[in-house]
Amino acid sequence: MRVGHTTLIEGDGPLEVGRGPVRTGVTVIVPGADDPWAEPAFAGCHRLNGNGELTGLEWIREAGLLTTVIGLTNTHSVGVVRDALIAAAVRKEAPGEQRWYLPVVGETYDGDLNDINGMHVRAEHVDAALAAASAGPVAEGGVGSGTGMQCHGFKGGIGTASRAVDGSTVGVLVQANHGWRDRLRVNGIRIGPLPGEEPAGRPGAGPEGSIIVIVATDAPLLPGQCERLAQRAALGVGRVGGAGEHGSGDLILAFATGNRGLRPLVDHDTQGTGPVAVRAVPADLIDNLFYAVIEAAEEAIVNALVAGQTMTGRDGYTVQGIGGERLAEYLSNHQGQTS
Amino acid sequence: MRVGHTTLIEGDGPLEVGRGPVRTGVTVIVPGADDPWAEPAFAGCHRLNGNGELTGLEWIREAGLLTTVIGLTNTHSVGVVRDALIAAAVRKEAPGEQRWYLPVVGETYDGDLNDINGMHVRAEHVDAALAAASAGPVAEGGVGSGTGMQCHGFKGGIGTASRAVDGSTVGVLVQANHGWRDRLRVNGIRIGPLPGEEPAGRPGAGPEGSIIVIVATDAPLLPGQCERLAQRAALGVGRVGGAGEHGSGDLILAFATGNRGLRPLVDHDTQGTGPVAVRAVPADLIDNLFYAVIEAAEEAIVNALVAGQTMTGRDGYTVQGIGGERLAEYLSNHQGQTS
Amino acid sequence: MRVGHTTLIEGDGPLEVGRGPVRTGVTVIVPGADDPWAEPAFAGCHRLNGNGELTGLEWIREAGLLTTVIGLTNTHSVGVVRDALIAAAVRKEAPGEQRWYLPVVGETYDGDLNDINGMHVRAEHVDAALAAASAGPVAEGGVGSGTGMQCHGFKGGIGTASRAVDGSTVGVLVQANHGWRDRLRVNGIRIGPLPGEEPAGRPGAGPEGSIIVIVATDAPLLPGQCERLAQRAALGVGRVGGAGEHGSGDLILAFATGNRGLRPLVDHDTQGTGPVAVRAVPADLIDNLFYAVIEAAEEAIVNALVAGQTMTGRDGYTVQGIGGERLAEYLSNHQGQTS
Amino acid sequence: MRVGHTTLIEGDGPLEVGRGPVRTGVTVIVPGADDPWAEPAFAGCHRLNGNGELTGLEWIREAGLLTTVIGLTNTHSVGVVRDALIAAAVRKEAPGEQRWYLPVVGETYDGDLNDINGMHVRAEHVDAALAAASAGPVAEGGVGSGTGMQCHGFKGGIGTASRAVDGSTVGVLVQANHGWRDRLRVNGIRIGPLPGEEPAGRPGAGPEGSIIVIVATDAPLLPGQCERLAQRAALGVGRVGGAGEHGSGDLILAFATGNRGLRPLVDHDTQGTGPVAVRAVPADLIDNLFYAVIEAAEEAIVNALVAGQTMTGRDGYTVQGIGGERLAEYLSNHQGQTS
Repeated sequence: MRVGHTTLIEGDGPLEVGRGPVRTGVTVIVPGADDPWAEPAFAGCHRLNGNGELTGLEWIREAGLLTTVIGLTNTHSVGVVRDALIAAAVRKEAPGEQRWYLPVVGETYDGDLNDINGMHVRAEHVDAALAAASAGPVAEGGVGSGTGMQCHGFKGGIGTASRAVDGSTVGVLVQANHGWRDRLRVNGIRIGPLPGEEPAGRPGAGPEGSIIVIVATDAPLLPGQCERLAQRAALGVGRVGGAGEHGSGDLILAFATGNRGLRPLVDHDTQGTGPVAVRAVPADLIDNLFYAVIEAAEEAIVNALVAGQTMTGRDGYTVQGIGGERLAEYLSNHQGQTS
Repeated sequence: MRVGHTTLIEGDGPLEVGRGPVRTGVTVIVPGADDPWAEPAFAGCHRLNGNGELTGLEWIREAGLLTTVIGLTNTHSVGVVRDALIAAAVRKEAPGEQRWYLPVVGETYDGDLNDINGMHVRAEHVDAALAAASAGPVAEGGVGSGTGMQCHGFKGGIGTASRAVDGSTVGVLVQANHGWRDRLRVNGIRIGPLPGEEPAGRPGAGPEGSIIVIVATDAPLLPGQCERLAQRAALGVGRVGGAGEHGSGDLILAFATGNRGLRPLVDHDTQGTGPVAVRAVPADLIDNLFYAVIEAAEEAIVNALVAGQTMTGRDGYTVQGIGGERLAEYLSNHQGQTS
Repeated sequence: MRVGHTTLIEGDGPLEVGRGPVRTGVTVIVPGADDPWAEPAFAGCHRLNGNGELTGLEWIREAGLLTTVIGLTNTHSVGVVRDALIAAAVRKEAPGEQRWYLPVVGETYDGDLNDINGMHVRAEHVDAALAAASAGPVAEGGVGSGTGMQCHGFKGGIGTASRAVDGSTVGVLVQANHGWRDRLRVNGIRIGPLPGEEPAGRPGAGPEGSIIVIVATDAPLLPGQCERLAQRAALGVGRVGGAGEHGSGDLILAFATGNRGLRPLVDHDTQGTGPVAVRAVPADLIDNLFYAVIEAAEEAIVNALVAGQTMTGRDGYTVQGIGGERLAEYLSNHQGQTS
Repeated sequence: MRVGHTTLIEGDGPLEVGRGPVRTGVTVIVPGADDPWAEPAFAGCHRLNGNGELTGLEWIREAGLLTTVIGLTNTHSVGVVRDALIAAAVRKEAPGEQRWYLPVVGETYDGDLNDINGMHVRAEHVDAALAAASAGPVAEGGVGSGTGMQCHGFKGGIGTASRAVDGSTVGVLVQANHGWRDRLRVNGIRIGPLPGEEPAGRPGAGPEGSIIVIVATDAPLLPGQCERLAQRAALGVGRVGGAGEHGSGDLILAFATGNRGLRPLVDHDTQGTGPVAVRAVPADLIDNLFYAVIEAAEEAIVNALVAGQTMTGRDGYTVQGIGGERLAEYLSNHQGQTS
């Protein structure tokens, strides 16, 4: 999968709706093929808590197919990203094609740092993220759709991790904007006050935040197996301290590119091709994928924290980065003595 | 698929719990292979209304696999049928095998006609139904688990129907014990009072009844596609007048035998076999399966009615058979004039 | 509930993407209170087939609360309508409020008649629909989001119907863009060729279309009861001939305004209020609501057809209106002779 | 809630199906009222992994009502326990009553220690558990349905824990028979080899086991809120090392007794009572219930381990108890140095 970011940072000081400060962005995930409509992936989803949006899920649930690029952004810009993904796909259609698109677009709420009601995300930012999408290492922390996000009381945002499993790879990308400070655990260790840590916390009225998790694998999974992987990612969220809080939109999508040639499952255009041959991971290998998803989700959240740099946003509100070295030192001081 | 019935009819007159009258039974459905554990079928389920029991659904939902024979009976005998199906399967295990079974057993309530609390179904009746299972024409109406059932104010019970679709077959078996008299429609025609019809109706305290629908096909479906077929059967129930009433347990299972060799998806015993090759029906053919299920479910309910013979049960309570000829005459008198 | 339409009709002749012809629009449904965030309604949803979008459902599923205005439009304009509904709500916030919105916006595909990829729906059209929202009779057929819709081979669009039930009212609004010509049934009667009917049908590549159903009631329902009502609407769709076809996005939302004061269930802003008192419809009344939903859904679809006027759209493609008189005459000629 | 156990331990040595050794039992949970049909509780459920049985869930999902006593046992005895719970309820009916029962009965697999195919659980054992049910402290470990269970490589079985939350209590009871040895974590600390620990492990062919979790609270929850609590229990399972493995039946039921007088929601017998008044926990309190469930589920599993005593079963297979002191010592040696 290829990932592209557009990061929008502009202005400082008091909130002036429509002017800023702007701390937001767009991230796109191209699932495997350039044109997911022509080369769809099996997919499934899971809701840990539903105070959030991830469009396109009814089609995922019904057909088990991911047929679009995935977009991520802030809560109030899901629409513009959705329609811009459609417009971008339309521009690449062959003459005479008449497709319908139901893009998968997720969000978390960056209104503590960002002028979220200023609606600063525009279609051109989606196009830029698509143009920037690459298979190389993914920038993490406060970039792209993760720009204005907070996680467990520190700066959050984009995080990624992957595991190799029985010849396949499982990758996880999170947009981490969830969790309370006092519930944070890393490697099972509860993270107490860090040296130099300043009391942060969301301004009163805001929601606790949310996390979007995208799980990708090249294993040959059926749609139901993708759904099972998505569900396991929730256990990883729980290990770091998330609880699917009421105010949190903890939505998870998993897709698998190990089966190809799924186009005839989408619509009538490939009429007459007959049954589609696919493969399913057997029972003796699926648990390893489950474990990989749990671990990679856990690590991706920690990576989002470690990559998150201290940021000041609207009305001077500041969120500290957890600081990779600071955290590492804390952990080494608090590890079990002999393990 | 093979179907076997054990019909239990004994005694007349006033209800004496534990003595009778008995109007109940057991029906078993062997999904394709003799040993569904060794040769499972993909499967999916749907709930139109949940005032009923169909055991084994959590496994169906998780793995999409039917790994046991299906049993049907009355509401208060689900347990004995379930355990007896396990015992029968255990007896056929190879030495040293250690399987677990989660059988699919459904029920509807025959307490208006039957001494349901007398618990007259015993393990031996399950064994007899298994022994009787054959691929030939299925006896319909008040037989097997359908013995004491009522449907839309008439005698109901077992009904079946099938459709040929694009080289595949779709079969539906219902245990029809649901529906009000005044909502009954056949071929879209509301069935008014029939000549000689006597006001029937369930005794006051009883539930409205329920319907179990089993959809079987030899098309090569994935689990999610089976679930979609199961959902369409609900539309067939609705066409005859069912509404998924609050007191009704309208539960539907669909399984597909078109994919074989699914054993490695069950557990670790086939370790090392690698991905399992399966096939999926493409988009341009699935609608025909949907239409077939709707029609066959509709017809199966009507067939259960037509096959149902007038029955008198506990406390002299009598339910009339709708009478095939009487119904046919009514329909021919009420068809649209030119169609 | 109040309903408002913006109808966009412009241009004729060959499709020129971005120029037209335009045959589309926006419809908004204000669920009861002017500000659904301050006065939410319990809600539930159901998927008959998922080839469609209805945003906001994860929140509905999790909390059972409808906290926004509902928007309807074409498939490729869901995003702009969603964000515009947010912007409109934001404009009405009190100073210092910091809400998050997850609007419910649905769609069906009007690309056979409309330049759908021209993205002609803009935020101002949403504002106009909101301004036009009234509690009076709802314009039906090819208006608002129903402008470019087709249904069972005829002109479709918006349809409504309602039923009085035990002191409550159940209303249904459909955006009907689904169904094949040869499956159309009205009152159970299959509608054969009508006098003067010209063979219509969607252009080759398009999907079969979709239907969005909104069920509203002032009965005091719990969220799970709303979900049950939503599911029954699917049976109404089935009665007219819909089958939840693979290419169809048949999504249903039901909400109930009979419980008020639900604001403390949304977020922390009403902290300290304690348990929220609500009421639930008892078992002996819920079936009547089910029947009302089935009937009203059925009638709403027929009303969409009857209100639909012949329309010519892109590339000269014409869809006939079914014609209320023509249909009535057909029905009276084909009713059962004595019923 | 009241809990009662029947523990069946008999015989030693080689497995002789039908003779033993017997290491199994029955546990019953009486949800609050003596007669849950007359005084139902709102309830909801969650599936972490579906390789298991918990009967009665379709009714729970549809109506959100727990109307029976809950039973727990081994995998192959679910049926006998289910029907025996019905028989026991029938015996307490008033003359002329005609109820239907859909009991909730769960299971995990004890076939490594127990002659599971010998079907040693009988109706009288259910009656004994019902007679023994008391509100006092619950015996834990290898008792009742937990008798033959294993958990994370040690002796498992029944475990309980509770938390006080904002004036309410949340209690969790687990039947813990799941998890691998090398994934076990307590308080986030991975449990390495313990002094004197002997390599255990399930015999080759058996499944990994399962966990049933019952969550009970006296908070006034709606059915959907119960479902949310059930889902959070899965995060507690994950914290101890469970992953919802493919071979595991990880099924969760949550019920809430804070709303009373729900009988009119069950069926027509209370006709004419009108809407039922209930209460819902508001948003500002629900998270505390979530946290309590996660913690109590985690603790209940650990309690099952700590209470589990070394047991030898069929064919001399022995499972060690983890040993409370041994575990405590390990934990104190491996705690973080300063926390």
